[in-house]
Amino acid sequence: MSNLLLTRWIGVDWGTSRLRAWAMNSEGTVLARSASDSGMGSLRPNDFEPALLALVAPWLREGCTIPVICCGMVGSRQGWLEAPYMAVPAAPVTGGDLTRVNSRDQRINVHIIPGIMQLQPADVMRGEETQIGGLLAQEPGFSGVVCLPGTHTKWARVRGGELVGFSTFMTGELFSLLAEQSVLRHSVGADGWDKGAFCEAVVSSLNEPERWAEKLFSLRARSLICDLSRTEARARLSGLLIGLELGGTTQYWQSHNVAILGTDALSLAYCDALETQGALCKRYDVEAMTLAGLNSAASQLLNSPHALEAVQDG
Amino acid sequence: MSNLLLTRWIGVDWGTSRLRAWAMNSEGTVLARSASDSGMGSLRPNDFEPALLALVAPWLREGCTIPVICCGMVGSRQGWLEAPYMAVPAAPVTGGDLTRVNSRDQRINVHIIPGIMQLQPADVMRGEETQIGGLLAQEPGFSGVVCLPGTHTKWARVRGGELVGFSTFMTGELFSLLAEQSVLRHSVGADGWDKGAFCEAVVSSLNEPERWAEKLFSLRARSLICDLSRTEARARLSGLLIGLELGGTTQYWQSHNVAILGTDALSLAYCDALETQGALCKRYDVEAMTLAGLNSAASQLLNSPHALEAVQDG
Repeated sequence: MSNLLLTRWIGVDWGTSRLRAWAMNSEGTVLARSASDSGMGSLRPNDFEPALLALVAPWLREGCTIPVICCGMVGSRQGWLEAPYMAVPAAPVTGGDLTRVNSRDQRINVHIIPGIMQLQPADVMRGEETQIGGLLAQEPGFSGVVCLPGTHTKWARVRGGELVGFSTFMTGELFSLLAEQSVLRHSVGADGWDKGAFCEAVVSSLNEPERWAEKLFSLRARSLICDLSRTEARARLSGLLIGLELGGTTQYWQSHNVAILGTDALSLAYCDALETQGALCKRYDVEAMTLAGLNSAASQLLNSPHALEAVQDG
Repeated sequence: MSNLLLTRWIGVDWGTSRLRAWAMNSEGTVLARSASDSGMGSLRPNDFEPALLALVAPWLREGCTIPVICCGMVGSRQGWLEAPYMAVPAAPVTGGDLTRVNSRDQRINVHIIPGIMQLQPADVMRGEETQIGGLLAQEPGFSGVVCLPGTHTKWARVRGGELVGFSTFMTGELFSLLAEQSVLRHSVGADGWDKGAFCEAVVSSLNEPERWAEKLFSLRARSLICDLSRTEARARLSGLLIGLELGGTTQYWQSHNVAILGTDALSLAYCDALETQGALCKRYDVEAMTLAGLNSAASQLLNSPHALEAVQDG
């Protein structure tokens, strides 16, 4: 517990369904971590501060104000306080663009990293800019494409330290809805994997994207009359979805350096899918990138006069 | 009430979410109708007979056995009793293939119309075969393509009085999941229509099917940063889905006579979508086709020795 006295700032990744926080020292090392289901989606404006305190109170001390750097949906219109989007092209995670929240508890000094928007074609992100900022903090010369697989998978182009354009695919959300709530729930298992079937389905969607909704129902029909296993159905559903996405992102992954920022299993699936097309990619741990991005914002804030004023209260 | 004494048989359309029944006279005219939410999806095997009786009891008399002809998911493995599929090519709705249910109540004599399956590519239908049978009963020489829009839209080829092949698209179920349960629920209205936006989205999906999941998220982004209205978002979501389906069914609707069997608004949307491609279609009322199909099965049953035996108990 005593090393928590070294907590210099707190990093928060506050998404729609999860709230995660890290106590950080001045070197950007994690001293403690905590998480809860108090996602933005389940909170009203007045619920945010209590939800945060419920998680981070053990890391706070009376008479000392600790900066809290948040990224994610917490800054959306339905969140704690709207942190206006920056427009592309934009350098992700710059301290000067943080939105300050007037929290009631004097022990915290909360800032939200703004999301990034693109007008043509219309698109938005909140949270992924921090992960891209983390990648740029670790590899300042990075130029190429970043893929962030998840509920709403992002494909982003990065050049000269800036995010220059991106596209969002609802692949992860479609997988959950189809696997858990559609008629396919009777046919698709909750776990298990079949790489061969997955890759076959990827190629099938890439070759005939217009028959995608038909191939979905075919999983149900094959489980009814051809004994398709629940494991294979799960891998094929994922492959049909990721294959459709790869068909829509060729301009991103063809002849570019692709960095995949995701959780282990999902990143690996994207790599396997890209390999069916001869494309190569490098995987990065998404939590490490989030922390590097939050750390980048925290460093800039802690070096600003405004932040010093906040911290010197302590 | 007195004309119910003329009830010669009862027709039932028993789907996953709805149960609908009609009291019919010997000419196939509707004497009364009733419906409830006791769909197959909410019932265990022992619940089916009570759910049916709750609806049709007012049409029954002691000492008289009335044939009940059912179509739909009631005949699935999760239904009242599995009515084994017929395989394509098959003449839909032939009395000889009905599956008899051993109901306990002596006043009813329940039969289920079998679904139809296709092995290559794997596909199944339950309920739509009865509507196609109804179309064939009304237009015995019909040859061409039948489109049955709905939760799981079917495209079927009919030739020489037989169903020779079909494809299912999860278009309707995807619309409901996306409009009501995905992140798009914040952007898509519960009603309203914009035909121009719908047709634009149809063409957009047809032209670039592989960017479909990206165009979905764009509806959300445009509602956040470009003030896309909920009405337009609804029409565009529908157009993106139906356009993707039309891209996968060109071999059905190009240079064929297309009969659309659906509810008014949905049939009209499919016609508008097909018109963007210069394809023509003719709309039929789906309830009338269901009744014609049930009537076709009832006539065959009532003329069989087995059915006579059942009715003469009365």
